[in-house]
Amino acid sequence: MKLPASLLDTLHTIFGAHACSTDDAERLAYAYDNSRRHALPDAVVFVQEHAQIEKLVLACREHRVPIIARGRGTNTTGATVPVDGGIVVSFERMNRILRIDPDNRLAVVEPGVLNGDLQRALAPHGFFWPPDPTSSPWCSIGGNLACNSAGPRTVKYGSPRENTLGLRAVAGTGEGFRSGTYTSKGATGYDLTRLLIGSEGTLALITEATLKLTPKPSGLRTLRATYRDVSSAAHAVARIMAQPVTPCALEFIDDVALKLAHDHGGDSVPLAGAMLMIEVDGEPDTLASAVDAVSRAARGDGLEELRVAQSAEETQALWSARKALSPAQRTISPNKINEDVVVPVSRLPELVDGIRQLSKKHDVLIVTFGHAGNGNLHVNLLPRDDAERERAHACLADFFALVISLQGTLSGEHGIGLVKREFMSLALQPSTLSLMHGVKAAFDPDGILNPGKLLP
Amino acid sequence: MKLPASLLDTLHTIFGAHACSTDDAERLAYAYDNSRRHALPDAVVFVQEHAQIEKLVLACREHRVPIIARGRGTNTTGATVPVDGGIVVSFERMNRILRIDPDNRLAVVEPGVLNGDLQRALAPHGFFWPPDPTSSPWCSIGGNLACNSAGPRTVKYGSPRENTLGLRAVAGTGEGFRSGTYTSKGATGYDLTRLLIGSEGTLALITEATLKLTPKPSGLRTLRATYRDVSSAAHAVARIMAQPVTPCALEFIDDVALKLAHDHGGDSVPLAGAMLMIEVDGEPDTLASAVDAVSRAARGDGLEELRVAQSAEETQALWSARKALSPAQRTISPNKINEDVVVPVSRLPELVDGIRQLSKKHDVLIVTFGHAGNGNLHVNLLPRDDAERERAHACLADFFALVISLQGTLSGEHGIGLVKREFMSLALQPSTLSLMHGVKAAFDPDGILNPGKLLP
Repeated sequence: MKLPASLLDTLHTIFGAHACSTDDAERLAYAYDNSRRHALPDAVVFVQEHAQIEKLVLACREHRVPIIARGRGTNTTGATVPVDGGIVVSFERMNRILRIDPDNRLAVVEPGVLNGDLQRALAPHGFFWPPDPTSSPWCSIGGNLACNSAGPRTVKYGSPRENTLGLRAVAGTGEGFRSGTYTSKGATGYDLTRLLIGSEGTLALITEATLKLTPKPSGLRTLRATYRDVSSAAHAVARIMAQPVTPCALEFIDDVALKLAHDHGGDSVPLAGAMLMIEVDGEPDTLASAVDAVSRAARGDGLEELRVAQSAEETQALWSARKALSPAQRTISPNKINEDVVVPVSRLPELVDGIRQLSKKHDVLIVTFGHAGNGNLHVNLLPRDDAERERAHACLADFFALVISLQGTLSGEHGIGLVKREFMSLALQPSTLSLMHGVKAAFDPDGILNPGKLLP
Repeated sequence: MKLPASLLDTLHTIFGAHACSTDDAERLAYAYDNSRRHALPDAVVFVQEHAQIEKLVLACREHRVPIIARGRGTNTTGATVPVDGGIVVSFERMNRILRIDPDNRLAVVEPGVLNGDLQRALAPHGFFWPPDPTSSPWCSIGGNLACNSAGPRTVKYGSPRENTLGLRAVAGTGEGFRSGTYTSKGATGYDLTRLLIGSEGTLALITEATLKLTPKPSGLRTLRATYRDVSSAAHAVARIMAQPVTPCALEFIDDVALKLAHDHGGDSVPLAGAMLMIEVDGEPDTLASAVDAVSRAARGDGLEELRVAQSAEETQALWSARKALSPAQRTISPNKINEDVVVPVSRLPELVDGIRQLSKKHDVLIVTFGHAGNGNLHVNLLPRDDAERERAHACLADFFALVISLQGTLSGEHGIGLVKREFMSLALQPSTLSLMHGVKAAFDPDGILNPGKLLP
């Protein structure tokens, strides 16, 4: 599709020549995201002000041209790939931290602020913003909100939905609006804030966010527990989550993943049936007893070794296994399929057993690790060639059916985007989907916001 | 309005004679709620099964007859008063706790379960559900969800929106649906769960809730701090909220309220410029240091006395002032107007000063106390006769304008209902309200669910 000349003129008027491009090179750079899917947009614009978005949406609405909001494209689901062409709106230049307000435990930011930059700016005030995807140095707050991206600390501190007070945004109608409050409590009308969070740019473009801050505990201890088998580790997870001291990370790594990390990361990575990486935070005079409480819960049938890191170096060594995983996987399969399903914690053993059977049935290598405290596992299918790739895709449908049968859902923190859209009807009832379509129509009557994503 | 005979027949078929009434006495009993407003419904039905609600909504939709969902009517905003007649659906008989699942930190309940009954059932498992309105012995979970009702523990543990994983419900279309997950993390489509929470029965009738449980700390300490003036107390609140140990209650009581409580509750109630009641929870070996941290923050300019209760009796004595307030107010004004506005914590001094000026300007007694940690104050206008009642109503508009000017909002936990609906356009932009109307139309195209509430 070619953009109408009048729309191109409008884009130039709104954004200026320096922030608006139809060059092939620029379009190519914004054609793909971390999903490795790609599709060329017709133009790329770099927004800096809320008012520009209002004008843009009105203009695009007139011409029925798609708008795709984009943070830094670190999502793995194709949520920012412009499958129907249109205009990619990059928020990378709208990246000011507008206010840090420790007294009210909040920060007001533009969506292009990088997660890592925000954390650095908050640190001197003694606060942090809990959502911390592993991509935090490169991913934007806007992207975190769009996908409800979380990370290991979610087990204790919640996801963006639990850590955002209010938003400013522009709906697909072209109307700018504010939702939520500057307070930690509110019962004034419908919760549009949470509705936008996780909607992947299909309802509105977020132009400002008021984030709820959490005081940063001054101490952190890292534990590593190895178990005879997956089931023992999963039972330990349930025991840990049933006692009052909630760890700030509770990561699971299965035996296949450990073997892989060991092969690539060396002997510092233990070999075991399964491993838990546990982090406990707190204040200096409470940390020891918190570590004791969590350690007691981690012990039990099947525990092989429990180590508490005594120094920063030891902590680094304990995390080496987890960190060695991503590079190790890439050496096997450049085309890994990375799912992030979630099941109730008590169903983790069944999930891991089921994955093992599917791996055998479809003859595909599957490596499993992730945020066990939330039942959120990263399940990586690692096809090495085209034949395996085809088998991996066949395996996916079985895999999602397994997850749903365990009362789980398709995604814990990556979202749906392009790649999981076809499976939505497995996870959600037709009536639920129909209400979601109704909400979509209320916010975006012409369907111009990120078409082809999230809803089937 | 008289219900069509065919609809009455349908009601009898769905509910049976024992759970469906058009008697005057029964209708009168369900005509009012804790707002003391009232309006007669045309019928009252007592639901016990999800399927009954699906049938009821379809039948009422056909005849365009209003449906008003009702828990126990403890709300203070008229949210369950059937202003346009129609059918009140009482959930009091749909009150089973379906599942308590400590391994997955969740409970599945029917909406008629009383908050207090749920807490009692959870206690042996070592868990609690954080929302605890002061009416917890008599209010239902369904009502808590409908109004996003919170309570003192919100400051540490959040409101129903932060403590609910999923819902089953019936939309105004007549379609039953499920939202959310059985897991503590999810990024599978729009967040309809939070959208329903706080929607006061205007979008759907909730028939089942999956609640997120929190391990119950085994220890609790109560502190009482009195200050020279409101401003000193408000600054102490900001200091307490800026350090890492978050109290599980942080209640503020102004001098007018203290004087009132002292007059009625006796000398155990201190007289001071303002008072904070602070509760800190934790495990036995961490509690002392948590109390120390909060005490350090509570100290500062203007502190007059800081007492830590050493026994259950002393705790009870410390709370006596707070508890004496409600009966004391009733002796002054049987028609008290109880608002629960919320402002950023740092704006509390300005709010309390402003209230004082309005009290003078309109010559109305105003008593202020509430959940200071969230900036959520209960502001009680106490008119003693008709003339004062008229002045109090005039004062309200000024009061809400003050709250909005301080970046606050109309309600922290009571909701909007009937009584604050006219002020919604003060708090929300026309564009925000228009999107809320769009959402309403998607869920309830014929406008039969709780008409006349929440949205202006």
